[in-house]
Amino acid sequence: MPFHYPNGSLYHHDAKARPKKQLVSSRTRFDNRGMSLEEEINESNQYYRARDIAVIYKKPIPLQIVKVDYPKRSAAVIKEAYFRRPSTTDYNGVYQGYYLDFEAKETKNKASFPLKNFHQHQIDHMRRCLRQAGICFVIVRFVSLDRLFVYPASPLITYWDQQTNGGRKSIPLNEISATGFEVHYALKPRIPYLKAIDQLLATSTIDKGDHHGQ
Amino acid sequence: MPFHYPNGSLYHHDAKARPKKQLVSSRTRFDNRGMSLEEEINESNQYYRARDIAVIYKKPIPLQIVKVDYPKRSAAVIKEAYFRRPSTTDYNGVYQGYYLDFEAKETKNKASFPLKNFHQHQIDHMRRCLRQAGICFVIVRFVSLDRLFVYPASPLITYWDQQTNGGRKSIPLNEISATGFEVHYALKPRIPYLKAIDQLLATSTIDKGDHHGQ
Repeated sequence: MPFHYPNGSLYHHDAKARPKKQLVSSRTRFDNRGMSLEEEINESNQYYRARDIAVIYKKPIPLQIVKVDYPKRSAAVIKEAYFRRPSTTDYNGVYQGYYLDFEAKETKNKASFPLKNFHQHQIDHMRRCLRQAGICFVIVRFVSLDRLFVYPASPLITYWDQQTNGGRKSIPLNEISATGFEVHYALKPRIPYLKAIDQLLATSTIDKGDHHGQ
Repeated sequence: MPFHYPNGSLYHHDAKARPKKQLVSSRTRFDNRGMSLEEEINESNQYYRARDIAVIYKKPIPLQIVKVDYPKRSAAVIKEAYFRRPSTTDYNGVYQGYYLDFEAKETKNKASFPLKNFHQHQIDHMRRCLRQAGICFVIVRFVSLDRLFVYPASPLITYWDQQTNGGRKSIPLNEISATGFEVHYALKPRIPYLKAIDQLLATSTIDKGDHHGQ
């Protein structure tokens, strides 16, 4: 059943799923089973913050607030609000002086990652951040394979542009595995994706002099 | 009249004012009169993004969504939600490879900036970002004087710590003017605060070698 934004544009399934996730994450959990990718990344970010390794947050969902009640002696209640389409990616922050900016996406596919998981505004945002020497990437999970990758924004954008010119509609797992950096689940944190970022930085030109005007 | 978060803690007046501001900013405006500091900064950020000068956004207000209706053929409506206390500052993004992170604050005082405008969680967040070599600061407006400054987080944190040890409850304008960087209103953008950041970076040790693991 399709829903629509107040401006008439189609309401996206991933945005639709978010309020539910947000509720779930606020409950007490006694194990990690059934954790969503988002919850696992949030938990990992919390780990990184607590140990002064990085300061990275998921951005709140942007809402258009229309009506707020202020009951006496209790919390203000929002009585009418609408989801707005985010103009950026979901996560950003700072790691050893680097600006990190990323999205997290999952697929049940086994051989490739469908580009329909991304939206034009996310690609545009990543392009802009890359031009500012930000470190942009996606954390991609192949659910059925139980494999997780950090895949840099540059090749993703190349695939995106090829698609809009009639190219293929997905990125092959081979390519993600070759150009990306695999992340292996661990205990602390659950998703140690900054290890992959260290590898990405080691191979990146950003680290080698064109940064910070030297 | 005091309001409270669902957890019982006091609901802050600046958070309370936000939904109103958010609505106003979505309307069409025909001049700049009566623009809030937040709106002016948002507009300046838009200018910077459009010209590929920097990618900086205000973060959405964090909400706890409790109830959502999905009416047929129209946008999902949030019917019950609560404000949550933000754990970070309001603005962040990337500028020439630098991670920027800041708050915007106003005072009607003429001789000093009251520290009560800041909250512990904002100070803690700035401290963490500084340890990651982020560029942290506040944009401070003295409303009655019509003067605007970029004031770095480090001296702010020093004042904050002194206050908690019985020191003075505000930062003198003299000090802000001496240690900070004055920003002069302009047309494009309204608040050219990145000029002040250039000055801040020129005097900063972050720029001189301890950055990016050299």
